[in-house]
Amino acid sequence: MKPPVILINYKAYENSYGKKSIEITKKIEKVSKEYGTEIIVSVPATMIHRISEESELTVFAQHVDSGEQGARTGAILPEMIKDAGARGSLLNHSERRIRLDEMAESLERIRVLNLESVVCVDRYELVLPVALLRPNAVLIEPPELIGTGIPVSKAKPEAITKAVEEIKKTKDVYLLAGAGITTGEDVFKAIELGADGIGAASAVMKAKEPEKVVEDFVKNAIKAMEKRGE
Amino acid sequence: MKPPVILINYKAYENSYGKKSIEITKKIEKVSKEYGTEIIVSVPATMIHRISEESELTVFAQHVDSGEQGARTGAILPEMIKDAGARGSLLNHSERRIRLDEMAESLERIRVLNLESVVCVDRYELVLPVALLRPNAVLIEPPELIGTGIPVSKAKPEAITKAVEEIKKTKDVYLLAGAGITTGEDVFKAIELGADGIGAASAVMKAKEPEKVVEDFVKNAIKAMEKRGE
Amino acid sequence: MKPPVILINYKAYENSYGKKSIEITKKIEKVSKEYGTEIIVSVPATMIHRISEESELTVFAQHVDSGEQGARTGAILPEMIKDAGARGSLLNHSERRIRLDEMAESLERIRVLNLESVVCVDRYELVLPVALLRPNAVLIEPPELIGTGIPVSKAKPEAITKAVEEIKKTKDVYLLAGAGITTGEDVFKAIELGADGIGAASAVMKAKEPEKVVEDFVKNAIKAMEKRGE
Amino acid sequence: MKPPVILINYKAYENSYGKKSIEITKKIEKVSKEYGTEIIVSVPATMIHRISEESELTVFAQHVDSGEQGARTGAILPEMIKDAGARGSLLNHSERRIRLDEMAESLERIRVLNLESVVCVDRYELVLPVALLRPNAVLIEPPELIGTGIPVSKAKPEAITKAVEEIKKTKDVYLLAGAGITTGEDVFKAIELGADGIGAASAVMKAKEPEKVVEDFVKNAIKAMEKRGE
Repeated sequence: MKPPVILINYKAYENSYGKKSIEITKKIEKVSKEYGTEIIVSVPATMIHRISEESELTVFAQHVDSGEQGARTGAILPEMIKDAGARGSLLNHSERRIRLDEMAESLERIRVLNLESVVCVDRYELVLPVALLRPNAVLIEPPELIGTGIPVSKAKPEAITKAVEEIKKTKDVYLLAGAGITTGEDVFKAIELGADGIGAASAVMKAKEPEKVVEDFVKNAIKAMEKRGE
Repeated sequence: MKPPVILINYKAYENSYGKKSIEITKKIEKVSKEYGTEIIVSVPATMIHRISEESELTVFAQHVDSGEQGARTGAILPEMIKDAGARGSLLNHSERRIRLDEMAESLERIRVLNLESVVCVDRYELVLPVALLRPNAVLIEPPELIGTGIPVSKAKPEAITKAVEEIKKTKDVYLLAGAGITTGEDVFKAIELGADGIGAASAVMKAKEPEKVVEDFVKNAIKAMEKRGE
Repeated sequence: MKPPVILINYKAYENSYGKKSIEITKKIEKVSKEYGTEIIVSVPATMIHRISEESELTVFAQHVDSGEQGARTGAILPEMIKDAGARGSLLNHSERRIRLDEMAESLERIRVLNLESVVCVDRYELVLPVALLRPNAVLIEPPELIGTGIPVSKAKPEAITKAVEEIKKTKDVYLLAGAGITTGEDVFKAIELGADGIGAASAVMKAKEPEKVVEDFVKNAIKAMEKRGE
Repeated sequence: MKPPVILINYKAYENSYGKKSIEITKKIEKVSKEYGTEIIVSVPATMIHRISEESELTVFAQHVDSGEQGARTGAILPEMIKDAGARGSLLNHSERRIRLDEMAESLERIRVLNLESVVCVDRYELVLPVALLRPNAVLIEPPELIGTGIPVSKAKPEAITKAVEEIKKTKDVYLLAGAGITTGEDVFKAIELGADGIGAASAVMKAKEPEKVVEDFVKNAIKAMEKRGE
């Protein structure tokens, strides 16, 4: 994972799985290749293997359970997603919050397995506490803006700037911004405010032409990184 | 699903996913074909598609989440497992209990999608309440015997006979017995006591020769059904 | 508990605890005494003892945890609420759903302790499954109407009539109706449709004169019972 | 709260509530007065008011729910425990883990209400992340030692020393040690290792003479503080 990080969370829409999700993936992959930029797609557990097989994008799970292998019916473990082709996992999304002890345990296991992790938080005060647990990135998403189309970078820029200040107190953890990210302009602004990348979901998954949205994201992400001189 | 129902729950052992799980699956499939008997394998979400592609066994999920498609990061929905090739799902295993409202909602959705369902309960008093929600089968498993190798059919036969009485108060719902089922004899006994089949996990997943264990299950299941005149 | 059952759920409003809740309780108690009718108040755990000491109303908890006494930090057990003066507990309210195994376990413990229980469900299909676990009453509340002021008895009368049909399949379990119950007329209608009583919360807790609302409930409940010839 | 902090968690034993818990409280209160030392008792929600009324000990809840007042059946809110007489609450005990977002929210609310907080963690890596959320104290308890009588201060002293190092990176947050604390010697050792106090449960609640155990704790806590020159 390196900036600009573009993470597309497929969630559980009707096009998040099956053939439709593979079509979307192929279109996103094309953008990734054209611009030479890594794009992370966070997909349903049932789709990790298929999407990993059919594309070269970086595939993430949307959640992993903590705890050991064993008699654990229904558990989705880091070992399983790795075997299926995932390179990492989202954790603690506002739609799937976890306990602090589970987070610590899962992050440790993820690290041991050489997987990557992006942990979501809803407020800047949680950025440093979570960063100390050494995920690859913390994704700040004010939940009230998720899915609204009102970008955090415009509606609540201080959420990003304060989060950026917090992340600087640690090392080697990226800060991503999410919630309402809809256009390339939103991405540009988020990175300009100091974020190392963005997370998005509905803006892509509900788009008529998802590849256009992602292309707009990528172009602006690159432009913003250049402006920052990175 | 029709009696004798043989359900193997892969759980989350180190051979429950990846190549090893496919090898086990192939061996179980061979038994299924040889005896012309359906065997259900309940596999991790990440493995549903691969195992469905590579075998003709009936594949089940180990759990599905309730609720609609949409902005639901981390959810594993009935729609997703169906798309991946599953023909049904376990629900409410003692290692993954769910709320009653979630159970009702998931079972309805599973039915609408023409999937099958096996709901686990820990005591006979819950057999009829759950059966009224119309799963395909109720699997009674006294949790204190799970994984012990001490078969419910020997250690607690009354759990089965009382459950059988309960299931008779409804129609079209099978009664399976589980917990500690280790040998063909345990299977024979369970069916003799009135069960329509069995659920097993560690006896198969931890066996050196899983196919031998399953074959022993199947032979005895058939024999017991014949004795019952079915 | 005997019909007409009037259950007021205090929930967690700013007047649900402390002096304000005792004032409301005193006013409700006056109505109860004047009409010779039992009224159940379901109060926060911290208030059970005080309200039990200061009034003769029947006090219920809003929830109890399942499981044994012991090393269980934070648990609120049936034994504790009984000791504090409660005569029973609500269970499985839509704001505090529980797992089926927990429900079965708590109801058994509640019975052993000679406490009473009212279990909430959100749809008529769950009335019989829950009634089979032998609570004193099942309270049907379509969640979409809770707190709206749109009474279930008007907006969704079939939820009540179907629930009444279901409850008749068992014995000794009452059927209560709730969600949006605001006026005496709503109470009358619910009982006329076959309910043995009602549950209400915001209509009382947010009223300027809670005692007037409760009096209206009680008068109409009595009238409806008389009409039914009970 | 000031060192040495002695926190007795009543949990949910059969003497944790009712008359027996008041008797124990009275005995502990006597020790507290004799030695002029604050002792915190963390009691079941149903007992907060009674124990607050009948003793001068500092009373804590064992858990509070996060979130606003309102339509929240079954919630135990900081506002409620304060009204009942509590001066603070335990949070995130290994028997009652909470999500990180709930922890942040509850701690903020607790602070606004001028209540105190002690947050439990199971490993030293979580000490600083939790301390950054500004509780009054972090209580480190290796879960495998809880209730064993094998004191953390002997069996796993490095858990305490590492935790002490972590807590020094922040300000104004105390570090308590718990799990297996049984004798005054264990308390002495924990404080000698740098802890600001201890948490205990079974050693007191299961003792024939709880007051003797607590007196032993207090004497040794005072002696250890003197040795540290505080």
